[in-house]
Amino acid sequence: MNIALAQLNYIIADIEGNSEKIISNINKARSAGADLVVFSELAVSGYPPDDLLDYPHFIDQCRLAIDKIASHCNGITAIVGCPMENPEETGRRLYNTACILSEGRLSGVVYKTLLPTYDVFNESRYFEVNDIFKTVEIKGRRMAVTICEDLWHEMDRFDYQDNPLALIAKDAPDIIINLSASPFNQGKMQERMEVLQKQSKAFQLPLVYVNQVGVNTDLIFDGSSVVLNRDGQTIVQLSSFKEDFVIYDTANIYEPLANTETNNIAQIYDALVFGIRDYFGKMGFKKAVLGSSGGIDSAVVQALLSDAIGSANVLAILMPSQYSSEGSVEDAKRLSELLGNPYEIIPIADVFKTFEQGLSGLFAGMSFGLAEENIQARSRAVYLMAISNKLGNILINTSNKSEMSVGYSTLYGDMCGSLSVLGDVFKTEVYQLAEYINRSGERIPEAILHKAPSAELRPDQKDSDSLPEYPVLDAILRAYVEDQVDPEHIIASGQDRAVVEKVIKLVNNSEYKRFQAPPILRVSKKAFGRGRVMPLVSKWR
Amino acid sequence: MNIALAQLNYIIADIEGNSEKIISNINKARSAGADLVVFSELAVSGYPPDDLLDYPHFIDQCRLAIDKIASHCNGITAIVGCPMENPEETGRRLYNTACILSEGRLSGVVYKTLLPTYDVFNESRYFEVNDIFKTVEIKGRRMAVTICEDLWHEMDRFDYQDNPLALIAKDAPDIIINLSASPFNQGKMQERMEVLQKQSKAFQLPLVYVNQVGVNTDLIFDGSSVVLNRDGQTIVQLSSFKEDFVIYDTANIYEPLANTETNNIAQIYDALVFGIRDYFGKMGFKKAVLGSSGGIDSAVVQALLSDAIGSANVLAILMPSQYSSEGSVEDAKRLSELLGNPYEIIPIADVFKTFEQGLSGLFAGMSFGLAEENIQARSRAVYLMAISNKLGNILINTSNKSEMSVGYSTLYGDMCGSLSVLGDVFKTEVYQLAEYINRSGERIPEAILHKAPSAELRPDQKDSDSLPEYPVLDAILRAYVEDQVDPEHIIASGQDRAVVEKVIKLVNNSEYKRFQAPPILRVSKKAFGRGRVMPLVSKWR
Repeated sequence: MNIALAQLNYIIADIEGNSEKIISNINKARSAGADLVVFSELAVSGYPPDDLLDYPHFIDQCRLAIDKIASHCNGITAIVGCPMENPEETGRRLYNTACILSEGRLSGVVYKTLLPTYDVFNESRYFEVNDIFKTVEIKGRRMAVTICEDLWHEMDRFDYQDNPLALIAKDAPDIIINLSASPFNQGKMQERMEVLQKQSKAFQLPLVYVNQVGVNTDLIFDGSSVVLNRDGQTIVQLSSFKEDFVIYDTANIYEPLANTETNNIAQIYDALVFGIRDYFGKMGFKKAVLGSSGGIDSAVVQALLSDAIGSANVLAILMPSQYSSEGSVEDAKRLSELLGNPYEIIPIADVFKTFEQGLSGLFAGMSFGLAEENIQARSRAVYLMAISNKLGNILINTSNKSEMSVGYSTLYGDMCGSLSVLGDVFKTEVYQLAEYINRSGERIPEAILHKAPSAELRPDQKDSDSLPEYPVLDAILRAYVEDQVDPEHIIASGQDRAVVEKVIKLVNNSEYKRFQAPPILRVSKKAFGRGRVMPLVSKWR
Repeated sequence: MNIALAQLNYIIADIEGNSEKIISNINKARSAGADLVVFSELAVSGYPPDDLLDYPHFIDQCRLAIDKIASHCNGITAIVGCPMENPEETGRRLYNTACILSEGRLSGVVYKTLLPTYDVFNESRYFEVNDIFKTVEIKGRRMAVTICEDLWHEMDRFDYQDNPLALIAKDAPDIIINLSASPFNQGKMQERMEVLQKQSKAFQLPLVYVNQVGVNTDLIFDGSSVVLNRDGQTIVQLSSFKEDFVIYDTANIYEPLANTETNNIAQIYDALVFGIRDYFGKMGFKKAVLGSSGGIDSAVVQALLSDAIGSANVLAILMPSQYSSEGSVEDAKRLSELLGNPYEIIPIADVFKTFEQGLSGLFAGMSFGLAEENIQARSRAVYLMAISNKLGNILINTSNKSEMSVGYSTLYGDMCGSLSVLGDVFKTEVYQLAEYINRSGERIPEAILHKAPSAELRPDQKDSDSLPEYPVLDAILRAYVEDQVDPEHIIASGQDRAVVEKVIKLVNNSEYKRFQAPPILRVSKKAFGRGRVMPLVSKWR
């Protein structure tokens, strides 16, 4: 039996475009001699469709698309993910469904059992839980058809009560099929392989795993689909971060593939470049603009943008103030020259002075402080947004996760942008990315890598005036934000009590800033944004 | 038997403060001769605690608080809402729990069965589902203890599979107790009463319903706790929008209370004033600042702020540009005079000109357009935020729901602020609020109520140049945003096809702006914010 794995990039709510792509891959699979072609979870609607699922006509359109796709399924069976109405009168109105399409029609459905509802996942908001556990027979083979989380009954933070595969196993399957929409984060590829291997070995069954690829705003789906043999060995491996299509012949004897070593920083680089490129592609955007300060964060974003959408499409705006060092402007110019980006210099001293004059009555007798620092950051944002509005370049945010965590950033200032590239990348990782970007030669000027980080909003300012050194800060943040470690345990792990308490207070006190932050490309297991919902009014300290 | 209803205002994560308040009300109830005192859902943690529930030490602290509260329960039983650990090894790690405290200890627990996970509710993210249905015996009475949604098995959009009360009813209860955290929205008080009446009548049991009161950022909990007799008639009614404490004697014969007529606009006014006041109170803020344009939206916000935190604490900033009419400034001055607010005038022409000069090279040969309109709105935001940073006044947003829906607002400009007061109030309702505010005399100048709405960002601009008249716009928005009506059905209801299509396109195209909007006080059944999650990258049109 020939099974095609169609690892495709869908656009949310582009039901027509997604359907066409699915149909063209059904035809391709048939031509290549496949008996079955497997697509990913909610392929018709795109994943995650969020509250579009509340619109009845969205569901109707998905249903019509399934019928149209089915009409192309002659001489081949397709398994396609789609939201479908719950035929019962009680319970959630929808099921997250694997539609079995054959002989020109919808011949069967399999519903999802385990509905992830934590971190970035929200499926209990929309879907009813499956309670039917049977195999699907296709060309005499008994398929255990499952959807994504159905294989993940053992979780980091809790276990589901049942393993759906164990229930289907009573119906004597020959093979496991899984339709997924499993997003990337650091360590996820390995974690995912361990889950798949465990299930395959536990039930001594081959496993065909089809993940989607593509970026939906903040979520980066890496693809990386696989086939495992009954010993849990990888025998077919599809690409990461791009579409792929492979046929697996169940009659073949495949040599197990060696697990390829993965470099964490290279993966983050690939994910971010893919994240930017797919965002621009899906939105129909061509050009970007960013504030280029001469610091490491904007330099790394500028390089990533250049690699994602082309150097000529990245406009760098240098906006020195009276507090910018001469070096900063020179470094930023040199960066644009090395990367081949057009750039403009717009000093902000005049506009800063004009704001100060406008406020001179109200602020009479008060000294320079946070308000004046923020005026500079916000004046830059006004320039950047004006350029974006006028020229159509999309403003890209350059804040990193360390800053975002402690609120070391100006709301409506450097926190502006339509997408945050580094908002899930700690400062220490930003340096590693810079080194990776420079791996074959200087693209980011060495001077930028080696100077002390500074916001340059007042004379001789350094980040280290207000914050602990970044390796210490990032270690505390990783424990508190990503691993939800009790402050007392962080202190017990060897960190200074006063520093830990200060950092955690800063994190808790800056929820209001993050509430208005741009969407952030997610590359860690706990990113700011939809996966971390914190109360704004609270006494949590 | 005497049952005390303690309708209190809790602060999220203020476990110590909440516990003290609970203990003091236990003592008060005991002194007043109560046998039982009932508190609301998740009273110890505050509701909703969101992802604080992911922090193990948060749960530990709640558990310690329950023991401390229990130690005060001698000679009286208390039922207190608290998140509690799931003792089982599988399933979600927590239960949303009603703790039964008596004889100085935690003597029993009742878990929540129906976990709302739609709109602003997210409980499946954290909690396991109860599957034990028994009464709790207190002083010889069999209590059907339920938590909020447990009474709401029949929903607007779907029905739950079971009615928990029907399952507990097999255990022959004498009375229904419900601990709630049920937020206000238009029509909610009546809807809630219908649900309670239906359950009470169906099981022919009296019902003691204790809701929390208080505002947690966007969610306004109105209290309005009640006792119904076994015929579903209201016999005890607690206040709306403030704390209350009442003792219900089961041996008494109560006269049914007449249902008081409620004025929708008066309710919205009460909710918004309470929303502002409790936000400032819980955050420890004293003073507000807003941009006062001479238009209706900022005028209504200025009046609501004055009523919530006192006129002297509301600083109005008038920032005319060259496109502001003379009338606007005069109207705004008169408004501040009528309301008794301090105000400052800061013209923005100079700063606008300075920005234009900075951009003259890049924008050479291009004509005035959206970029220049937005520079004005954003310059105002820079001034307002500088004032906020310097003086400590909290910037309050003045956008209304009609503008927010269609994106007729400037991101990082008039969309700034720490809280949006009118973001869930359509423009047509803003006018009704203004009339209500003026019900006993002119507080908002009549001229503001009667001029044509304008953003005044270019010469002779009127909202009606770009948008349909507000009654038409609001009707379409209400159908599309609040009721998720198919555009074809909106057109079939009598709206012009071109207008409907234009409005819906504007709504769908401005998701990215709302993503970065401030939290919005929720007064409708579908507000922008946590209750409406839409994909940013999508082809939904």
